[in-house]
Amino acid sequence: MSIETRLAELGITLPEAPAAVASYVPWIRTGNLVMTSGQLPFRNGKLAFEGKVGAEVSEEDGGEAARICAINALAQIKAAVGDLDKVAQIVRLEGNVHSAPGFQGQPKVLNGASEFFNEVFGNRGLHTRTALGISEMPLNAPVQLSVFAEVAS
Amino acid sequence: MSIETRLAELGITLPEAPAAVASYVPWIRTGNLVMTSGQLPFRNGKLAFEGKVGAEVSEEDGGEAARICAINALAQIKAAVGDLDKVAQIVRLEGNVHSAPGFQGQPKVLNGASEFFNEVFGNRGLHTRTALGISEMPLNAPVQLSVFAEVAS
Amino acid sequence: MSIETRLAELGITLPEAPAAVASYVPWIRTGNLVMTSGQLPFRNGKLAFEGKVGAEVSEEDGGEAARICAINALAQIKAAVGDLDKVAQIVRLEGNVHSAPGFQGQPKVLNGASEFFNEVFGNRGLHTRTALGISEMPLNAPVQLSVFAEVAS
Repeated sequence: MSIETRLAELGITLPEAPAAVASYVPWIRTGNLVMTSGQLPFRNGKLAFEGKVGAEVSEEDGGEAARICAINALAQIKAAVGDLDKVAQIVRLEGNVHSAPGFQGQPKVLNGASEFFNEVFGNRGLHTRTALGISEMPLNAPVQLSVFAEVAS
Repeated sequence: MSIETRLAELGITLPEAPAAVASYVPWIRTGNLVMTSGQLPFRNGKLAFEGKVGAEVSEEDGGEAARICAINALAQIKAAVGDLDKVAQIVRLEGNVHSAPGFQGQPKVLNGASEFFNEVFGNRGLHTRTALGISEMPLNAPVQLSVFAEVAS
Repeated sequence: MSIETRLAELGITLPEAPAAVASYVPWIRTGNLVMTSGQLPFRNGKLAFEGKVGAEVSEEDGGEAARICAINALAQIKAAVGDLDKVAQIVRLEGNVHSAPGFQGQPKVLNGASEFFNEVFGNRGLHTRTALGISEMPLNAPVQLSVFAEVAS
């Protein structure tokens, strides 16, 4: 099954790849690696959630925010490679959760992103991951996610 | 001298490579790079230390935690490549220290990991590094460490 | 125009590549990628700024600190490749801003680094970026920046 068919089956429509917030680019290809910039949970041009997870944002909403970041990252990867069937492997998620003091559920929050890639790509979606809790985040976003993907040469 | 011999000489027994905490994998190979997921200081299935360095965890214990993370990362790299003599270079440590307010000893803490790789691999253990102090950490671990290694093709 | 000529035109003199703060190396090359260790805003052997952006360090000074980190990173890349005209693309900036509570201007601060690479390299300076606000930083530096560059083989 093609990845586009799989996305349709899951009811997911990829958005326009969000523009970078400042003077950089949202993705780059070097060799067989595509790297995205840090993706925020933009939906229809606005942050879907704002604040720290464990305070203004619940753990469940944090997971939804992580999923939206992942969808945006996939839109960037599509912009980079054109055809998503060229993605050989999702290699790495670097996940950063804007965390209220004492919040330690970063892995659960980031599962919202990990499970998205697993659902869409199956074994090709299995990736390494980091999960950090940070104190301050651009635009007060609850999650920032970078994705590295290996693409067929 | 083989790396396994060197480990034995240093009295180090690699553990089973720890499983990932959530829905991702603990290592991946892309081209000649092996990347680990963020490693926590698990020893015999339990965190050897918990809390923030500079508060519940001393700087010295933080260094020991970093060393345990490094041992776990090496176990992952071994799982990836089979034979540790195939490691051409430890390329990068991304080090994150769960830090109490005002604690700035992240480099000393992470030397526990850097020196481990230097001891085991000699010049092939010399790596780049980042050292950040973060406010919240999964499972309340004091250190999280990711390792990138170049392996022979 | 060569990159050295462009640097001269911009009035920029690259410093000696700063040594690593601890037991690691300031850059490494793996395949066609050069990665730097986390660079701090050292100028003439001393930190040009100290403290958290949004508290002891203004947003504007934070941007200047980011620019100094970028200059130091470029000095590392030059040490790695010898001739800066071999840089095919600045691939990635991993930017970490030592942030006072509530400070969300990390993107503006890091533009100090991004714009430096854009000025020097033009299209070859366009990069992906992460922008995180962290609570504690080695040596109380306001910014830490890692740079990945693709070099011609």
